[in-house]
Amino acid sequence: MSVPYKIYLSEGEMPKAWHNIQVLMPDIPGFVNPANGQPVPKEGLLGVFCEETIGQELNKSDEFIPIPDEILSFYSMYRPSPVVRAYCLEKALGTPAKIYYKFEGNNTSGSHKLNSAAAQAYYAKKQGLKGVTTETGAGQWGSALSMACAFFGLDLVVYMVKTSSEQKPYRKVLMETYGAKVIPSPSSTTDVGKKILVENPGTGGSLGCAISEALETAAKSDGYRYVLGSVLNHVVLHQSIIGLEAKLALEKYDITPDVIIGCAGGGSNLGGLISPFMADKLRGKSKAEFIAVEPASCPSLTRGRYAFDHGDTGKMTPLIKMYTLGSGFIPSPNHAGGLRYHGMSPIVSKLYDDGHISAKSYTQSDVFNAAVMFARTEGTLPAPESSHAIKAAIDEAVACKKSGEAKTILFGLTGTGYFDMTAYQNFNAGDMNDYIPTDADLEKGFATLPVLPNV
Amino acid sequence: MSVPYKIYLSEGEMPKAWHNIQVLMPDIPGFVNPANGQPVPKEGLLGVFCEETIGQELNKSDEFIPIPDEILSFYSMYRPSPVVRAYCLEKALGTPAKIYYKFEGNNTSGSHKLNSAAAQAYYAKKQGLKGVTTETGAGQWGSALSMACAFFGLDLVVYMVKTSSEQKPYRKVLMETYGAKVIPSPSSTTDVGKKILVENPGTGGSLGCAISEALETAAKSDGYRYVLGSVLNHVVLHQSIIGLEAKLALEKYDITPDVIIGCAGGGSNLGGLISPFMADKLRGKSKAEFIAVEPASCPSLTRGRYAFDHGDTGKMTPLIKMYTLGSGFIPSPNHAGGLRYHGMSPIVSKLYDDGHISAKSYTQSDVFNAAVMFARTEGTLPAPESSHAIKAAIDEAVACKKSGEAKTILFGLTGTGYFDMTAYQNFNAGDMNDYIPTDADLEKGFATLPVLPNV
Repeated sequence: MSVPYKIYLSEGEMPKAWHNIQVLMPDIPGFVNPANGQPVPKEGLLGVFCEETIGQELNKSDEFIPIPDEILSFYSMYRPSPVVRAYCLEKALGTPAKIYYKFEGNNTSGSHKLNSAAAQAYYAKKQGLKGVTTETGAGQWGSALSMACAFFGLDLVVYMVKTSSEQKPYRKVLMETYGAKVIPSPSSTTDVGKKILVENPGTGGSLGCAISEALETAAKSDGYRYVLGSVLNHVVLHQSIIGLEAKLALEKYDITPDVIIGCAGGGSNLGGLISPFMADKLRGKSKAEFIAVEPASCPSLTRGRYAFDHGDTGKMTPLIKMYTLGSGFIPSPNHAGGLRYHGMSPIVSKLYDDGHISAKSYTQSDVFNAAVMFARTEGTLPAPESSHAIKAAIDEAVACKKSGEAKTILFGLTGTGYFDMTAYQNFNAGDMNDYIPTDADLEKGFATLPVLPNV
Repeated sequence: MSVPYKIYLSEGEMPKAWHNIQVLMPDIPGFVNPANGQPVPKEGLLGVFCEETIGQELNKSDEFIPIPDEILSFYSMYRPSPVVRAYCLEKALGTPAKIYYKFEGNNTSGSHKLNSAAAQAYYAKKQGLKGVTTETGAGQWGSALSMACAFFGLDLVVYMVKTSSEQKPYRKVLMETYGAKVIPSPSSTTDVGKKILVENPGTGGSLGCAISEALETAAKSDGYRYVLGSVLNHVVLHQSIIGLEAKLALEKYDITPDVIIGCAGGGSNLGGLISPFMADKLRGKSKAEFIAVEPASCPSLTRGRYAFDHGDTGKMTPLIKMYTLGSGFIPSPNHAGGLRYHGMSPIVSKLYDDGHISAKSYTQSDVFNAAVMFARTEGTLPAPESSHAIKAAIDEAVACKKSGEAKTILFGLTGTGYFDMTAYQNFNAGDMNDYIPTDADLEKGFATLPVLPNV
């Protein structure tokens, strides 16, 4: 049975439940109170997050969690998304490997982020909230949440990393077109923002700082909660739709991937893509390899520490155990803004620490060379974030050419680069920053890790 | 049988031949030499256009023309494209109408233009050419052709309307990323460009002027030909894949559209969308209505004349009979740059003149109100061009609400607005130009129509 360019599931075949990998990871640590080192009870989170998503965050008993009909309807506007056979890339590489990618970019937000945005906006509306706050760096998450909030009728305040809002003015326009209020961060709308502005008057902001501002605004506004687009377990849960669809689509053609590759910033895409495949591996039913790919400029997995840390610069969040560079680590500017985060999903971190996932990092120039090759052969111009996975997939395929192996490679093409043209402009002009932090740079970040009284 | 949100054909079901509506229009006039009013023979076109496309341009005998395998392979990277049921828009409007749209925006060029770009690049390569030249206004055609030329290995020079290249720098970057050379027009690289610059030193250029420069460059360069993204019969032929897929998809669910709506600039999208449906009508097998929608600022059909005219400002092209505002008509700036052309496809013009198509026009504000409503309900942020069709479809659906009719409406969503965020920014800021040309403005354009010695 010959494999088409694109394998689509029908809408009826779209998964009706998310996959909760936590069930197979009973010893994954939860939220910890930095003041006393004790677990944070569910009640301690209710003022910040939506109730339903907290339940999902802490759920270690249900491997499959039904997707509400309203979210399935929203998903049906842009899902199921295809698994694409990269025939043209294979030909250009002359590789015996078979390369597949799960494409999540065919929606206006341009990325997989919409999968969790839809869920979180729906649960917020169902809870009777007036609105939500969030942060965005590269802009994919803010765009996705704007779309979901417009659809479900929720107000939205987005704190957008200031440098990003200046470099990507069109992301801001996109969010505003969907009705969101976009505030460059740090701002004078919050105490934490004001404090940061006093301490660093010229700062361009950071994701960790924008999170702090969004958290503060949610806490101070009636009928508001804070929502996050990555890192947390419930976000990985929502993103499992990526892996579930990919697995179903491949199974239609009796295809079993040998290598599964995803870019990793906060880890939600990688976690969602691998979820059902990893379940097979944890149950001893699969020998697939899993590879996380991150920028050399922000190497949370490859050079970070597995430690309890805050999720934000303002140290307002509870602690979570994750691979981290320290909440005070300032990643150097790079075009894959979605991967510039000091920490990593606790699920991905645990799987990596347990040896089930390997990790590698690339410089920006390596990544953009792969991106342009992909664009010219496969048509689609990829997001800088996704291009990390493309680079690793190409390296795997080239290795197959040398070894003669015909491995089946699956990678996540998380999004498109249509709002990232400044990045391509710099690349075309030969103007890329391939900075890699020194050990001394990393030590400065590690020095900001919290010291726990009793963990 | 309930209709899903998106009706996809399988790759195997994708049409293997284009539909040539010319066969049913035997009295459609061809190219005419302005010097003597006589038809231009095929040989007179060989120095300008690719041989295979000239054959298609003049073909009035074959209703179906096979699509070469290489083009089918290229199509398979982004086709078949879905017919989408606009359930959420219907609900928001409270209409009994059933609204469907054929979505052509799910590719990096962001529009249907890729359908003809793939074909024209392939034929140019097959002919042994080194490269091609073209013009682009809004940028969709230039982007599409860049992708196709990168894929088939052809050089490409794009003359981009200067104001557009300044307002949409990212379109330029996109084309350059795919390897194209992009020259803002008018430029000093051509005689016609130099002449225009002397006569109008501050001009921002126009599509008609960019066409003249591209034609001159192709004529002067060894191994080059000129390719055009709209207007001509062979472009409508390539775009018939839109209508063929739409008809097949709808037939799967026994759906027959009562009204078919498309935006009309040069007419290639509209012509391609309606082609197989119009064949049924011309054969007396259908009573469907067809509506062309254009900007009030550039009303070729609704206020133009059916006359022989040049396709370009420099009056270098042969004459074609079309609805036109005169090649000297300067359309006011508007955000639907793809619809800012003085003329109209001869096929669409003839069908309109024969009463088979009706036409209407809207101001920019009307169009963007419809665009934002569509974006917030259906998710996808539409291109300004496509939003003309959305506005007309919404009006039809609202009329159905009043009359109680449950009409089936099909419109063409030709593309996405991701590279048009300046337009949305202006709209969000309440800053739209709703200029409509006066009769005196139009008379100035009509005064530039050629006087034929003998037609």
